[in-house]
Amino acid sequence: MTDSLQLPSLWFMEYQSFHHGHVVAIRKHIFSGKTKYQKVDIIDTYQFGLCLVLDGKMQSSSSDEWIYHECLVQPVMVTHPRPENVLIIGGGEGATLREVLKHPSVKKAVMVDIDEELIELCKEHLKSFHQGSFYSEKVELKFTDGRRFVENCPAGTFDVVILDATDPLEGGPAIYLYTKEFYTHVKRILKDDGLMVTQSGATHYQEFCFSSIARTVAEVFPVMRLCIEHIPSFLSTWSFTVGSKKYDPLALTKEEIRRRISERKLELKFYDEDIHFRLFTLPRHVKELIQKGQICTDANPIRLKI
Amino acid sequence: MTDSLQLPSLWFMEYQSFHHGHVVAIRKHIFSGKTKYQKVDIIDTYQFGLCLVLDGKMQSSSSDEWIYHECLVQPVMVTHPRPENVLIIGGGEGATLREVLKHPSVKKAVMVDIDEELIELCKEHLKSFHQGSFYSEKVELKFTDGRRFVENCPAGTFDVVILDATDPLEGGPAIYLYTKEFYTHVKRILKDDGLMVTQSGATHYQEFCFSSIARTVAEVFPVMRLCIEHIPSFLSTWSFTVGSKKYDPLALTKEEIRRRISERKLELKFYDEDIHFRLFTLPRHVKELIQKGQICTDANPIRLKI
Amino acid sequence: MTDSLQLPSLWFMEYQSFHHGHVVAIRKHIFSGKTKYQKVDIIDTYQFGLCLVLDGKMQSSSSDEWIYHECLVQPVMVTHPRPENVLIIGGGEGATLREVLKHPSVKKAVMVDIDEELIELCKEHLKSFHQGSFYSEKVELKFTDGRRFVENCPAGTFDVVILDATDPLEGGPAIYLYTKEFYTHVKRILKDDGLMVTQSGATHYQEFCFSSIARTVAEVFPVMRLCIEHIPSFLSTWSFTVGSKKYDPLALTKEEIRRRISERKLELKFYDEDIHFRLFTLPRHVKELIQKGQICTDANPIRLKI
Amino acid sequence: MTDSLQLPSLWFMEYQSFHHGHVVAIRKHIFSGKTKYQKVDIIDTYQFGLCLVLDGKMQSSSSDEWIYHECLVQPVMVTHPRPENVLIIGGGEGATLREVLKHPSVKKAVMVDIDEELIELCKEHLKSFHQGSFYSEKVELKFTDGRRFVENCPAGTFDVVILDATDPLEGGPAIYLYTKEFYTHVKRILKDDGLMVTQSGATHYQEFCFSSIARTVAEVFPVMRLCIEHIPSFLSTWSFTVGSKKYDPLALTKEEIRRRISERKLELKFYDEDIHFRLFTLPRHVKELIQKGQICTDANPIRLKI
Repeated sequence: MTDSLQLPSLWFMEYQSFHHGHVVAIRKHIFSGKTKYQKVDIIDTYQFGLCLVLDGKMQSSSSDEWIYHECLVQPVMVTHPRPENVLIIGGGEGATLREVLKHPSVKKAVMVDIDEELIELCKEHLKSFHQGSFYSEKVELKFTDGRRFVENCPAGTFDVVILDATDPLEGGPAIYLYTKEFYTHVKRILKDDGLMVTQSGATHYQEFCFSSIARTVAEVFPVMRLCIEHIPSFLSTWSFTVGSKKYDPLALTKEEIRRRISERKLELKFYDEDIHFRLFTLPRHVKELIQKGQICTDANPIRLKI
Repeated sequence: MTDSLQLPSLWFMEYQSFHHGHVVAIRKHIFSGKTKYQKVDIIDTYQFGLCLVLDGKMQSSSSDEWIYHECLVQPVMVTHPRPENVLIIGGGEGATLREVLKHPSVKKAVMVDIDEELIELCKEHLKSFHQGSFYSEKVELKFTDGRRFVENCPAGTFDVVILDATDPLEGGPAIYLYTKEFYTHVKRILKDDGLMVTQSGATHYQEFCFSSIARTVAEVFPVMRLCIEHIPSFLSTWSFTVGSKKYDPLALTKEEIRRRISERKLELKFYDEDIHFRLFTLPRHVKELIQKGQICTDANPIRLKI
Repeated sequence: MTDSLQLPSLWFMEYQSFHHGHVVAIRKHIFSGKTKYQKVDIIDTYQFGLCLVLDGKMQSSSSDEWIYHECLVQPVMVTHPRPENVLIIGGGEGATLREVLKHPSVKKAVMVDIDEELIELCKEHLKSFHQGSFYSEKVELKFTDGRRFVENCPAGTFDVVILDATDPLEGGPAIYLYTKEFYTHVKRILKDDGLMVTQSGATHYQEFCFSSIARTVAEVFPVMRLCIEHIPSFLSTWSFTVGSKKYDPLALTKEEIRRRISERKLELKFYDEDIHFRLFTLPRHVKELIQKGQICTDANPIRLKI
Repeated sequence: MTDSLQLPSLWFMEYQSFHHGHVVAIRKHIFSGKTKYQKVDIIDTYQFGLCLVLDGKMQSSSSDEWIYHECLVQPVMVTHPRPENVLIIGGGEGATLREVLKHPSVKKAVMVDIDEELIELCKEHLKSFHQGSFYSEKVELKFTDGRRFVENCPAGTFDVVILDATDPLEGGPAIYLYTKEFYTHVKRILKDDGLMVTQSGATHYQEFCFSSIARTVAEVFPVMRLCIEHIPSFLSTWSFTVGSKKYDPLALTKEEIRRRISERKLELKFYDEDIHFRLFTLPRHVKELIQKGQICTDANPIRLKI
């Protein structure tokens, strides 16, 4: 075999900006198609394993989805002393749901995703992601617009709300899931001690986005905390913004976190009581960036260009 | 939709050298797998339509395979006054066979390809290439090594031999289909007025390859002629080397070519009596390069590195 | 050294469409900057040698500029029995000028380019392209808009006009150098036996462009001829459209062309009396495409999107 | 301007493996050339600012070199109560030196780099990196092989040794700066309370490398600690391995770190007492990977293939 044959033929390319992208060799092509709402590619790659790509943007890879999903879900679920009713917006892979269901106190997990075809594709092709979570009796799947669902939901319904939508891309469906008006509705449907978390994008190439989301959540909730972790397949440190009506994730002790993990028999690969504090420890430049964010409103939302 | 979404996610990449390559966006992925002999990818692309890729190298695209296959087949078939028995080595897509069968004088077309699995894949996925040619009663398919087949074949068997093998890549299976010893056997199995043609690679980035093949054919056959044409999906002007025991493609008149095309009722998209002479008209630098080729032998064959 | 180190670090990338591009490794970076009119990159590459890139598009490479410039200039210059006054629009590298000055009958060559800074850069960095042509006493350089120059030029001034502008890119400066109104002016400033040629773009990925230019020239001039040749660094077969008031390039005999080349002592690398006819021999699909072109007018010009 | 013109022409490409790479658009090309030891490219990029590239691999970018260099230098320098004599191996940009010199207790900083030409290039082109550190009276520059320097150095010479060499690439010069024998020499030339740190590569695509370095350091030193942080321009979380004869970075309190930073008047952009503990908090999978590393020896060193 010649040297050159070591370079594969089929690649996934994603541009983080017009000035930076990555190329990922495809081991096996699983699915490509369009749903009513978006373009879906499911590919098996050498570097990142099985990947879900929506509208050309990497959403999850089997090599690090457990980092992403534990960082999204576990800090808020563990911070809540006894989460029973949980709402997930987005999270089509079912891995956010998987993390939520690990908590034995959960009685009902409502998952709202606008794209039923996507969920069917994930059920079939991403079994290692959802691990059957879709079929739990505790789960209620709703195929509708997340914004409308939240607006129509009675007050005080949920202990935890987890927002796992796509980025607020210009022209995309998620822009109004990142505004002050939306977060105000989320606050309303949370119980008095409820808390929410939203994925809030990259910290080093979408600086204005994550900082604006953080500032907007801080406008609405008495407690706002940001946690960050590097997600290799996203080519960036990723941010998750917590908004809480009562509990502060940083008020927990390591001992208390360890106790809750143990009592709830959580089987985790990434998160633990040490990582909890690593996630919420922000470098100075990240703290300074948050000060520069804008308040996102329905009239003036954040819109990513790429 | 944002500007960036106009750049597709899935791409085919091929490097012509360590210093030059092209990237081709994939519209639809058809098949990827390995046969006993090679890696096979069949992809539908925006730029070149349906493409067959072997070991990472573009073999044929529906956007220009008719240029390639007519240039390979028609000059020799038309130069022969009445081709009855034709041998094809390689040509797995079945399009070389398709071009041969257009000639009503053909009684038998023997096609030898080492890779039966590849032929099955082409039968299924590349119907617009072979157009059913595999199923003609005139066709005899043999799954064996082309070199061995030719060595074991009786003298004077064929009117025309068409060599449509992969490039002589280092470590690949085709190296010994481009040597003086092999061409001597091809000459032996041709009738006294028979002629052969071989694809002989790119003229502008594999200069030493095509020129060595041309010189080697000229060593064995009394008549050697080179024809060239740009094949867009190959990123190069491509060469085809004719070796003839008697007939000279350049001794035909335009009138004679037109008459043969008409009498044989050839339905062609690219080749005609004008193109015939265009193909064989070589720029000076190509003629000069041929002088610099080496004689390829079994002991000292040409080996492409990429 | 490891295998991977064979892949260079610095690359030129050009997309021919949103679905197809090429990558060319840079051996040495010579110049990058912006003139008043365009972005200029001059790079030395392994594959194509020294390259001039304007607004991200390859304009010329030392590996094949002699093919491009001989195909552009020599067919019309040789077709004219005694070209004395020649106008060049564009052609900043000075290689078009170089080809024109080879003809001893030329008394004056007027070169009009809007971008004086570009010409200075070419003078300094592309010496192998212009070979000092800019400094000939026969040359008159004018830094002004080509369209305006032609409109203000007296009738019957030139024997030959050579249009070597950039492609008619949307938003670019060259759109009105490819319209019926412009060609009518060109016809006006030609002598009664004068002829013009314009580069007219790729034949396989800008099909609508070259065919529309050809049809528009045919609207204005009694004789329209297209010649085509593969230019490797452009990734395509390129077209050149001739418009003539009297002489037909195809009415020449090979003997006459040979005689003129010999009498004029033309030192050429690509063009000769055989290549002349190769260039003007069009495949059927190219002839059919020309029928589908539109007439480009100032009100409805051709605009390339990429 | 057309959409496509938003994609730049000149790019830096780096493959992290044969299956994964990134592409970074170049804003301005500063320098390319070869020293006696390596290929050097200095480029200004849109995404990462000014970048130093050695043998095709990104070494530092102005957008995040302060993260890298503070993470490399400050944890060990702060852990030492009064570092006076410091040795740096590698670190050609001068930024490691810059971080060392921030500590007022430092009397002498010896910097050993094999490549004098590289240092001259960095002095000239990377002024924002070294900020004049090369010219401090405390600095002694030695252009020699780091391994030999350490072997010939008297015992007990240094308080802190900082190893900022290139990765142990197969065929590269740095392989023997990552072995048990070398670290044993480093230990010997440290004072009884001295400590060292080495950059130890990516944690998610060079897993066997960083873990083997960590295990090897742990074989030689009584205290081994790993710290990790995401460096965006390296496309990975990066690791730094500390080996200490006495002081444990994790035995410090936040208050003590804050006090030292304040007393030493350290002006820092990334590191502080909170980040100190973030850096040393390892996810479980990283801790498990360290267990799987091999002991690197001169006879059996680690060799990266790409």
